Formats: sequence, structure tokens, C-alpha cells
Amino acid sequence: MPAIPVVVENRSLSELRPQLLMLPGPTPLPQAVLQALSGPMINHRGPAFAELFAEIEKGLSWAFQTEHRVLMLTGSGTTGMEASLLNLFSPGDKVLAVSNGSFGERWGDMAAVYGLEVERLVYDWGKPIQTQDLRSKLQADKAQTIKAVLIIHNETSTGVLNPLQEMAAIVREHGALVIVDAISSLTSTPLPMDAWGLDVVLGASQKGFMVPPGLAFVALSAKAWEVHAKARLPRFSLDFSLTREYAEQGWTPWTPPIPLFYGLKVALQMMQAEGLEQIQARHLHLMQTVRAGLKGMGLELMIPDERQASRAVTPVYPPPGLDADDIRKSLLEEYNIVLGGGQRKLTGQIFRVGHLGYQHLPNIWATLIALEQTLKKRGYPVPAGISIAATDPDYEY
Amino acid sequence: MPAIPVVVENRSLSELRPQLLMLPGPTPLPQAVLQALSGPMINHRGPAFAELFAEIEKGLSWAFQTEHRVLMLTGSGTTGMEASLLNLFSPGDKVLAVSNGSFGERWGDMAAVYGLEVERLVYDWGKPIQTQDLRSKLQADKAQTIKAVLIIHNETSTGVLNPLQEMAAIVREHGALVIVDAISSLTSTPLPMDAWGLDVVLGASQKGFMVPPGLAFVALSAKAWEVHAKARLPRFSLDFSLTREYAEQGWTPWTPPIPLFYGLKVALQMMQAEGLEQIQARHLHLMQTVRAGLKGMGLELMIPDERQASRAVTPVYPPPGLDADDIRKSLLEEYNIVLGGGQRKLTGQIFRVGHLGYQHLPNIWATLIALEQTLKKRGYPVPAGISIAATDPDYEY
Repeated sequence: MPAIPVVVENRSLSELRPQLLMLPGPTPLPQAVLQALSGPMINHRGPAFAELFAEIEKGLSWAFQTEHRVLMLTGSGTTGMEASLLNLFSPGDKVLAVSNGSFGERWGDMAAVYGLEVERLVYDWGKPIQTQDLRSKLQADKAQTIKAVLIIHNETSTGVLNPLQEMAAIVREHGALVIVDAISSLTSTPLPMDAWGLDVVLGASQKGFMVPPGLAFVALSAKAWEVHAKARLPRFSLDFSLTREYAEQGWTPWTPPIPLFYGLKVALQMMQAEGLEQIQARHLHLMQTVRAGLKGMGLELMIPDERQASRAVTPVYPPPGLDADDIRKSLLEEYNIVLGGGQRKLTGQIFRVGHLGYQHLPNIWATLIALEQTLKKRGYPVPAGISIAATDPDYEY
Repeated sequence: MPAIPVVVENRSLSELRPQLLMLPGPTPLPQAVLQALSGPMINHRGPAFAELFAEIEKGLSWAFQTEHRVLMLTGSGTTGMEASLLNLFSPGDKVLAVSNGSFGERWGDMAAVYGLEVERLVYDWGKPIQTQDLRSKLQADKAQTIKAVLIIHNETSTGVLNPLQEMAAIVREHGALVIVDAISSLTSTPLPMDAWGLDVVLGASQKGFMVPPGLAFVALSAKAWEVHAKARLPRFSLDFSLTREYAEQGWTPWTPPIPLFYGLKVALQMMQAEGLEQIQARHLHLMQTVRAGLKGMGLELMIPDERQASRAVTPVYPPPGLDADDIRKSLLEEYNIVLGGGQRKLTGQIFRVGHLGYQHLPNIWATLIALEQTLKKRGYPVPAGISIAATDPDYEY
């Protein structure tokens, strides 16, 4: 269970000036999505809802790059992670949980709560996963007792992007299921579910989808559906078969959060107009800009190698002698800019700049300059505009 | 697991004319609540959210008439029912499930899924619970093996209001926990949690609270919290201790559906301005008006005795020879009025007129007259306006 994080925010300012929400979820939302939330309540057992549902389902399959149906569950991303365990395993089944951060560790903990045997491949927080270790672990499992490998694609707590395609290929060779938390990577990062042979892929509305929190998404391969049919962990409201049975009618088994469906329809239309490759390229560019800017002002990134870096969030160490949460507090109080903090054992040690969803360059620039000003006031020497200069490809640092 | 219900709706008409949503949830919502949903995303780990959370918590305790904290879980009412089992029991614990409709039966089924020993006190759907039966069952349990009694306050599937106060007193004498699904009764029906000695009370946002679906509410007595501390059924995201720990900071353990919190704040302010007794009186009056009107046009109510009748929904039999779903279809296609259908084994046999939440007399009158017109067109003789005449206390029927 997670510890309660430290947070700073100034209530009064946030009502007077526009806020920049630089978090990896919840993210800022398009006005069109916010307005769509105010649609009237309708019968969730009628064709109007079913039509809405069907359009969204099609859009989600597009975003997941899968031919399979994407299930929608009311809840947070954690609900999806929990549901994937409840629906695919029986008590005593062995899973391998790979982790290099908070969310990976928690998924293993969750599996243990439900009586699964949890083998772990653990790296220090933020350290890259060595695929050779995964290969050795699975090759040693000659009897194929490992039923599935739990992989975090983008570890939001440490901003590390794990080598999913390569890991999935190794797991497929072994025969275990590839179960992927893609909650903070979906849409921003290449993730072709079918092409990469992923068995279960999880997403959540408040991340790359530009929708408020409240819906988890789960897609299953044909093989995962077969495994599900034999899984005996007790479950009721999150049962995948029941969810699929209703989805075939365009409904959910339980009363759904109707406003989020209205919002999701609009957001998916916007995303399809932009195009998946363009969305990915935009996030790559935002990430590169943030990284170059932070390095330009002399800060140390938690993930030094860009190839291992998240397109959703960039964690960075404060300059020596300064506290990460103090810097966040300043940005909030003086400029109404919200940054993420370090989670659990990273509390106070890093801050995290989110650049996910409805984001564009001007927000990044404003955040970088505000950070420059804040550091300068605290006695850390930053020439004004150096972070922006550093985003110029010709700039040398 | 519930069967998929039969539903009728005309998509094109519903876009052209205002709709009357006469369901026991989702209910129509005030415009102020719908607009509040469009508020900006904020950091759910900040004081702005915590302030919103604290105000809502206070409002919910007011609505539950309890001194205890009301927990908020992302999900449907079913999520709350499931969470109450996961958080209060250990495998093999015995519960007594009392049922006279679909929701009562389902709760017992759910308890069995999680390995509880389920004793049942079952009545035909819609038949009143005889409190003497409950007393005998519990008196026979000399060893006090029954840990809790699961009670549906208002059985939405059959429109019967169960004698909760009397039942709770009987259960308290025995010593078992009183666990109450008050999902469709809360706010519309007297339900003083503390005064009646209820241990667990469940609600949901889309019922009497005038908010979209997506949040379940759960309040626990001191005794229930003690029992919870020893309960060993596995649970993760729905854990009550964790939820309480975060609630003490004004937060939820997992990313919450922020728009619903904005809406709930406004709805609770409206409810407190109206007053709990006034809300209850309004629902009583709406229920009496619907019942008198339906009887006035010669229809047979499923619950003949008003003292056992729901303030949220009134199920009624169609005239002999007419199909309930055909009548609903007509009302929808010709007048864009949505009625509830019969659930599971009552499909096609009844229709249900909802009168819950943001409802007032004109909606009821319009529905009654539309029904008169529809029946008349189908060859069932109804003098125009007879249903309204029947709501006059001096009218004889």
C-alpha cells in the first residue's frame, strides 16, 4: 500500500490565475472535452448509450492498435491492474513481476495479496531493466511454472520507459502471458499491442487520453481470453466475461460514469484527427525539449539516457542543497505551475515535470523559465533563457 | 450475475425533444450540477482537492445522518456492495442475506463468490419481509454463528421498501452486524444511520444525490470498524483502512473522478438548502401521486400497500393483454419519456416509473398523461385526465 505523498499547493492563487498542470495525470483537458462532460443523463440501458459506447470502443481499439475489444471498467488505473490479476489467475499461480519503480513493486504486492506466488526481478528505482536477466530467469523456468510476466511499460514514479518490445519477445518465447501496464504510455509512446504480441494491455482515462480520471481500459489477446476462461480467483463486479457480454450490447454490467463517456468520445475524435504517429512525435518532442532545457540549466536528470526516458514525465534532481518540494512550492505559489513530487522513497529528492496529453511547447517553455527564475532566487546561478537556448539543436552543453 | 435487460429507445427523437428520464437512477440532474462537471482538472494530491473533499464528506455525513466518516469509492453501487463484503469478512464467515428481489439475491450470490457461508431468508419478488421470520432465524442461531445480516432497504427491482428500522433492532438484539444497501433509498427515505443503529450503510452518486454515476458511498459504525480490523478477505484498491487513511488528508488512495466531486459539492449544497425532511416529504408526495394516478387509470401496482412502497420507483403491471415493454417503447418514441423495465424474471411483465432525485410534480403529471394516451391508443379505455383526477384526495377510486 502506498504512503501518502507530500504535496504543496496554494489554494487562493489557483483561483486567480490560470494553472499549468504539469503532471503525468490528471492532465489538462481540452475545453471541448470539459464541456462534453455536461451532457444530460441518459438511460445506460438504451441505444443512445450503446451508440456512444460503440464509437468509443472503436476509438480505443485504434489507440491500442489492436483488433481486440477494449474493456472499460469504472475505476482508476489501479482498478485495471487489480482486475487483470483477478481475471487471469487461480490461487497459487506463479507470476514474475519485473520492477524498477513504485508501480512495478506495487503490482507484485497486489498479486501476493491475492494468493499468487510472486517471483520478482527487481532493479533499483529508475535503473534500466536488463533484458538478459529476464531471459535467464525464464530460461531457468524449464517446467514453465511462470504463468505470466507483469511489465510496467512506462514507470511513472521514475520516468523510465522499459524495453517492452524486446521483453515481450523474450516472454513469448517462454510461453507465459505478457501483461502490460501501459497506463501512462498509451497514445504518447509507440505500443502496437497486436504487432508486439502483447496479451493484456492496461490504460486509464486520465493519462494520454485527455479525459478525467474514472475509467480503466483493458484489452486481451485471444490467448489471454483462453487463460481467463480457466482463472478461478474470485471476482464479481470486475469480471471480464460479464463485461464482454455487456459490451457486445454496447453496455456496461453496472451503471457507468456517463459524463466520462461523453468526454472520451470527443477526446478520441480529437486524437484521431491528430493521428497516432503525430501524437507520439509531439510527445517525443515535448520530452526532448524538457530534457534539453533542464540539462541546459545544469540539472541532473534521473534517467540520463533518452532511449530509456518516458514521454509522459521527466524526473529531475534539484541542485545540491535545494529541496525538491521547496522548488515545487515556489513554482506553485509564484506562477501557479503544478509539478509532480517524488513518490514514496523519492519524496523530496526529485521533482517530476509532466508533459502528457493535452500539452504543447508553450507550456513547456513557461515551465522551464519559471524554474529558471525560481532557482535563481534561491541562489542557484541560471542565466535567463539558458534552458530555452539549450533546446536549440545547435546549442552545446 | 444479472441477465441483460430488454430495452427500447428511439435515438433520433431523443436528440430533437427534451427527454423525461423517469428512472430510479441515473436520474435527471440540475443544470448547476451538469455545469460543475466541467471544472478544470486539478492535482488530486493538493489542498484544493482536499478542501472540496472535506466539504463533500461533511455533506455526506449529513445525508447519512451519521457522526461517522462516509467513504467514497470510484465505482457503481455494486462496487460498494462488493467492498462491504471484502472489508468485513474472512473466508467461511456466515452471513444472512434477506431478499425479496433482484438486488437482495445478487448480494447473497456475491457473498458466496467470496467464500462466505450464505444463509438466506428469501421472499418472492416484491413480497413484504416478515420481521417475525428474521427474529426466528436469529433466535435459532444460539451460537451466534451469523456475523452479519445483509439488508436491502429499498429493493429497486420490485419497488418494495423493507422495514429497516424494525429489522435492525432485531439484528442488534442478536449481535450481528446490520449491513444495509441504501443505494436507492438514501435522501428520499427516512434513514437515520446512527439513531437506528446501522453498522454499514451504502449509497451511490446516481440515485438520490443528483450526481452522475461513478461514486459509491460507505459509512461504518465504530463496531463495523472493529470487525473490519479482523477481516481477512483479500482486497487491494477497495480497502477501507487505506481509504480512511487517505480521507484523513482529504484525498482518495487512487486517482479519483474529479468531475463527480465538483458535481457532488453543488448537489449537496442544493440538498442542504432544501433540507432532508423536505426532500423526503417531496419524494413521498411524488410517490403518492404516481401511485394514485396509476391506480386511477385502473392499473395494478406491484406493491399494493403504500407503507411498503418505494419512494424512488413504482413498478406497475400493464393492463391484461398488453406488453410492458411495448408500452415503454410507445412512451419513448412518441413522447421521449424513459421508463424502467422489469429486471430478470420480471422482464416484459412490469414497467417501473422512477421518481427519484431531481424530480417534481410536473414531470409526474406529464408521465401519467402520456401513459393514459398510450393505453387509450392500444384499446385500453382511459378517460383523459382520470389519473390526475385520481391524485385529488377527494377523488374516489
